[in-house]
Amino acid sequence: MKKTTIKHIENRLFEVPLPEVLSDAKHGDHTHFELVTTTITLANGYEGTGYTYTGGKGGKAIKAMLDHDFAPALIGQDGEDIDHLYDFMEWHIHYVGRGGVASFAISAIDIALWDIKCKMANLPLWKMAGGEDNTCKAYCGGIDLMFPIEKLLGNMQSYLDRGFNAVKIKIGRENLQEDIARIKAVREYIGDDITFMVDANYSMSLEKAIKAANLFKQYNITWFEEPIIPDNYKGYAEITKVTGVPVAMGENLHTIHEFEYAMEQSQLSFVQPDASNCGGVTGWLKAANLAKENNIPVCSHGMQELHVSLVSSQVNSGWLEVHSFPIDEYTTRPLVVENFRAVAPNIAGTGVVFNWEKLAPFEVKNKELV
Amino acid sequence: MKKTTIKHIENRLFEVPLPEVLSDAKHGDHTHFELVTTTITLANGYEGTGYTYTGGKGGKAIKAMLDHDFAPALIGQDGEDIDHLYDFMEWHIHYVGRGGVASFAISAIDIALWDIKCKMANLPLWKMAGGEDNTCKAYCGGIDLMFPIEKLLGNMQSYLDRGFNAVKIKIGRENLQEDIARIKAVREYIGDDITFMVDANYSMSLEKAIKAANLFKQYNITWFEEPIIPDNYKGYAEITKVTGVPVAMGENLHTIHEFEYAMEQSQLSFVQPDASNCGGVTGWLKAANLAKENNIPVCSHGMQELHVSLVSSQVNSGWLEVHSFPIDEYTTRPLVVENFRAVAPNIAGTGVVFNWEKLAPFEVKNKELV
Ligand SMILES: [Mg+2]
Ligand SMILES: [Mg+2]
Repeated sequence: MKKTTIKHIENRLFEVPLPEVLSDAKHGDHTHFELVTTTITLANGYEGTGYTYTGGKGGKAIKAMLDHDFAPALIGQDGEDIDHLYDFMEWHIHYVGRGGVASFAISAIDIALWDIKCKMANLPLWKMAGGEDNTCKAYCGGIDLMFPIEKLLGNMQSYLDRGFNAVKIKIGRENLQEDIARIKAVREYIGDDITFMVDANYSMSLEKAIKAANLFKQYNITWFEEPIIPDNYKGYAEITKVTGVPVAMGENLHTIHEFEYAMEQSQLSFVQPDASNCGGVTGWLKAANLAKENNIPVCSHGMQELHVSLVSSQVNSGWLEVHSFPIDEYTTRPLVVENFRAVAPNIAGTGVVFNWEKLAPFEVKNKELV
Repeated sequence: MKKTTIKHIENRLFEVPLPEVLSDAKHGDHTHFELVTTTITLANGYEGTGYTYTGGKGGKAIKAMLDHDFAPALIGQDGEDIDHLYDFMEWHIHYVGRGGVASFAISAIDIALWDIKCKMANLPLWKMAGGEDNTCKAYCGGIDLMFPIEKLLGNMQSYLDRGFNAVKIKIGRENLQEDIARIKAVREYIGDDITFMVDANYSMSLEKAIKAANLFKQYNITWFEEPIIPDNYKGYAEITKVTGVPVAMGENLHTIHEFEYAMEQSQLSFVQPDASNCGGVTGWLKAANLAKENNIPVCSHGMQELHVSLVSSQVNSGWLEVHSFPIDEYTTRPLVVENFRAVAPNIAGTGVVFNWEKLAPFEVKNKELV
């Protein structure tokens, strides 16, 4: 047996409650997030942990695929050959792939393998993934669509207090005038020097999105995120072409092919792959590379504690999203922000070390599912 | 409570062994198939069963999504309003969708709802789904890539003996000359009057597929199925444009958007949606309608016992695939073929009534998964 043979894989599911109910335009109310972790042990004793997360649905399906389709097929394979395993995983579940639950499951495994790879090389992820820098621009975004304006502005203040100079809010209310009122209030509150993005969670028709973008223009919006469904690649280009407003997406693109369609058809100004659902570090880097070839800054969605290393590492580094699912608070190193920039961890591995004791109360054991 | 309120949903998983190991170019060896059934009961007592299947992986994830994400959210909703529920399901799991495992799970639910809808209307599915005819063209296809030529020809004879005048074989061996030898042997064996298709299970590069298509031409191949990965929509058009050989795909398209891309970009001569993985009867009919608008015959993939009703019902009816996963043998009415045509069942409902006793030995209970 090789020293790097995969000996053991353990998957765990946690349902972590949110401090308050958070709502957006398309996913409704969030009361908790699901965290699925995968810990892989090699014959040489090296151990790595990867993970993925959801807004509350699908976690059990992801864990079932990890437990029953991936773990048994990966045990005994060489854990060092990530490119081979990535390819193997894609074809292994291709019939029930591509994308969706399969991409979430593959992501968790791939991140665990990268954690091991970095530990074996005794290097932090930001160095292994590209090494361009260990810090990156970062913005704070809330799932705040239903917050009254006063509370929304309070949120903005809390972001500024935490050391950020860039913010994002949810839009996509039925009544577009309410969106405009919220945008206006936020821009007036934060002033002209703060970077400001909006996110509609693909709740709009193309027609409404164009109307909305035209109305946003005066508020100097850095990007209009997911105005329409991710499937309508050409619609994104249409919005930019007609209005001149920069568009962004990526959190709902799950395969490299979907990123290729977006690059070719969508005229994105920013792309936001999420390593938890586009194939882990390997998938994220493929997307980042494609972005580089297309001269687009690569950003991220969710799990800031991991993406800080990835976004920092790239020459076409864009903006790190600091998401309001506080996964980083369940690790030994919640996100660090200095001089308005997020700082990547410098320890060997991905730098994401879970605080298992803090997570323990939220674990869902298989026997509870029967 | 409305009389049509959903009262109960029961999901079951079966691992059904195949009589022998079957292999294709991309999924490797099949030793069994997974069958996931969903039985829905309304307040008025009407009961319907839907299902989906896989080649052996993903079944537990599909069942987990049905048990934990869909069943609890559907209980209490109106089971008669299928369009609303279809839409609801898509958005409910959108974050871990679109396509993949989610499409399989949605399909099972949707088919159960259609079973109820037909029973309440006291009509067979072929009438409810379109009503054009109750019979359709059908061909037999094997997962026979690794069969020696003699055995392959024996298979062809068995198809002819069962009353078919159309056959399909797997291709996609490493060595293209072996594919050609198999195609030549089959064409010589079956003669010029039998319809003949080939299926590469997307194992070829575009370059190899074009070379292959040119070599196939002399054997009068009705279609070249999945020469390349389903994600390369434009590549399909390229093959037809360069070689003149008709191409087909659809079994790996899981959302209506993917069918739209194929219609727009792929120049398909036939499209093959599978109701078990593209959103059930509702999803299949959406794809069929899109095919009609594009003047393309609609065919099917797998589960002939259900698709016979759907393919027969359409004005642009193409070919029913009679697949070598024998799901129909676990129902009370295995597929009926008369005068070279498959005959849809005439009972109220989808006409697919499982023989639960025959399936019982293969059930995987949740408690075995812990
Ligand atoms: Mg977003
Ligand atoms: Mg096929």
